[in-house]
Amino acid sequence: MANEANRPNRQILLIERPSGRLEERHFKAMDAMIGEPGPGEVLCRTILLSIDPANRAWMRGRTYRAQLNEGDVMAGFTLAEVVAENGSGIPVGTIVTCENGWQEYAIHPAKAVRPLPIKGALTHHMSVMGITGLTAYFGLLEVGRPKAGETVAVSAAAGATGNVVGQIARIVGCRTIGISGSDEKNDMLRRDLGFDATVNYRSETLREDLRSAGPRGIDVYFDNVGGPLLDAILPVMNRHGRVVCCGSVSQYDSEGAPVGSRLVPGLVIVSRLRLEGFIVSDYEDRWLEAEEQIAKWIAEGKLQVLEEVIYGLDSAPEALIGLLAGANTGKRMVRVGPDPE
Amino acid sequence: MANEANRPNRQILLIERPSGRLEERHFKAMDAMIGEPGPGEVLCRTILLSIDPANRAWMRGRTYRAQLNEGDVMAGFTLAEVVAENGSGIPVGTIVTCENGWQEYAIHPAKAVRPLPIKGALTHHMSVMGITGLTAYFGLLEVGRPKAGETVAVSAAAGATGNVVGQIARIVGCRTIGISGSDEKNDMLRRDLGFDATVNYRSETLREDLRSAGPRGIDVYFDNVGGPLLDAILPVMNRHGRVVCCGSVSQYDSEGAPVGSRLVPGLVIVSRLRLEGFIVSDYEDRWLEAEEQIAKWIAEGKLQVLEEVIYGLDSAPEALIGLLAGANTGKRMVRVGPDPE
Repeated sequence: MANEANRPNRQILLIERPSGRLEERHFKAMDAMIGEPGPGEVLCRTILLSIDPANRAWMRGRTYRAQLNEGDVMAGFTLAEVVAENGSGIPVGTIVTCENGWQEYAIHPAKAVRPLPIKGALTHHMSVMGITGLTAYFGLLEVGRPKAGETVAVSAAAGATGNVVGQIARIVGCRTIGISGSDEKNDMLRRDLGFDATVNYRSETLREDLRSAGPRGIDVYFDNVGGPLLDAILPVMNRHGRVVCCGSVSQYDSEGAPVGSRLVPGLVIVSRLRLEGFIVSDYEDRWLEAEEQIAKWIAEGKLQVLEEVIYGLDSAPEALIGLLAGANTGKRMVRVGPDPE
Repeated sequence: MANEANRPNRQILLIERPSGRLEERHFKAMDAMIGEPGPGEVLCRTILLSIDPANRAWMRGRTYRAQLNEGDVMAGFTLAEVVAENGSGIPVGTIVTCENGWQEYAIHPAKAVRPLPIKGALTHHMSVMGITGLTAYFGLLEVGRPKAGETVAVSAAAGATGNVVGQIARIVGCRTIGISGSDEKNDMLRRDLGFDATVNYRSETLREDLRSAGPRGIDVYFDNVGGPLLDAILPVMNRHGRVVCCGSVSQYDSEGAPVGSRLVPGLVIVSRLRLEGFIVSDYEDRWLEAEEQIAKWIAEGKLQVLEEVIYGLDSAPEALIGLLAGANTGKRMVRVGPDPE
């Protein structure tokens, strides 16, 4: 460990909070020292770094975590290996999830890391069995509560959460509508992931497209984007429809004040709609159960894994900027260091 | 009955759908003939006519009922006496709730009327035990689901539904905040109905007022008005807060396109809020249970009855116009004919 502590720790800092679109100039790479874990702490080596729309939201203000400030190491969820520890009770070599941020190493108190029972490929624990997959699982099943035969629509459907939402909706017997901003992504969703129908939200006939994609209306809308698309969908919702408020990515990477959805007065009442926000950590005591179910669906060939692995920590800024522009298909992550031996 | 059928039936028609504020000129009184009930039908004599904000919404477009058109008898909920029947199975003399609209008599198929087991004063069946009281009961308890010790805020708190919401919230052990547009009404709410705090929504320090009225935040907001007040309240809601979407009276009596609340992106997610619309008729199979509970609270002195009775069918237009301007305190109704002997 002594030699680890003196090795450089590559970091990427947020040096300026963007007022408009995020750009590479808002970040800066540098080398720090690794340091040694204090009593009850672990030193974690980053293996995979999760790239998420929420990363951008954290720069805008306080969310479910503190706001990011200039000069901070950029925050991010990571899958890591414990490479040193100091009476933490967590053995060296344990694979954990933690929030290392955009750096090769970070030190945490033991309670800030979660040892991970590995089932299959490591990357799956960052995609379908990671935060985004669990978000899809709990948001759809616990907040949306779809019944077999109902119609489920999901926005950012080719994204990390969206593609899993659509696939789980199909597995539980629903008609699935995927909404994305690209015909190529939509073709892939129908062809490879079994979506029943897709809609391009850039279409000039959006409302008609939604109606023909869901001729029996929409019962559950899993909303990853917020903004005007939500406005367009509310009137197409069936009575007692449910909107799972999961993300508002359409608003994260923009200048000035965010533009919310305009709730048409009376529509929520007349259609008896339910709009409900949630955070996946509210279900933390049931994550294991969900991981097991998802692993089972993968093994049975019911759930396809859609992920993109980008190599090298220094690629992280570009990876996030591209994600915010909709360049990704499935879960995007950065490979920082090798798998444990 | 033969002589009843030839008697005049006073009616008030909606002769013009208002584009801006509702005025008396949009209505016209006339006399029609009563007519006779056909097979399976009942002839109902109006005793009490309910005056509701929803009356105005019906003129704007399709809601949970068909839109009102020019020349229609103005629609309205009524408490009535069956004065003739034709093999309907409902005896003459039965008191029923029905939708006679703004007229002295109406004929309905038997299934369109609901015989009413009378408990106490007839007017109570139009106020605390009527649609508005039941709306308060089911909206608060089933949609808002307040727990003892939580804080419940209600808008249009001196109105027919709002005052009952606040009182039931107090009965189940919550801190109650009443919101109205008048200091006099607010004084009455605290003094006579036991509200813990009140806020005038016209205040220039609205958000601060809300925070000091609910120092522990708001857990349930029973929304009767929609619009900008909802915008102001959402940021004051506690985590896992619930918004009962019951009415958007702020939008009913206005010109042009309705202005919805702007949902602040991310707020619903970060605070895990639930916004849910409902219609009291969804709970029709449990109305009797609610009426019994409410009657019990009245008998125990826990629930005060706040109602205004205005005399004469021809007063109905003025009564509704005043209601939309916030002139009422409690449930407003028009006495059309005498109680049954």
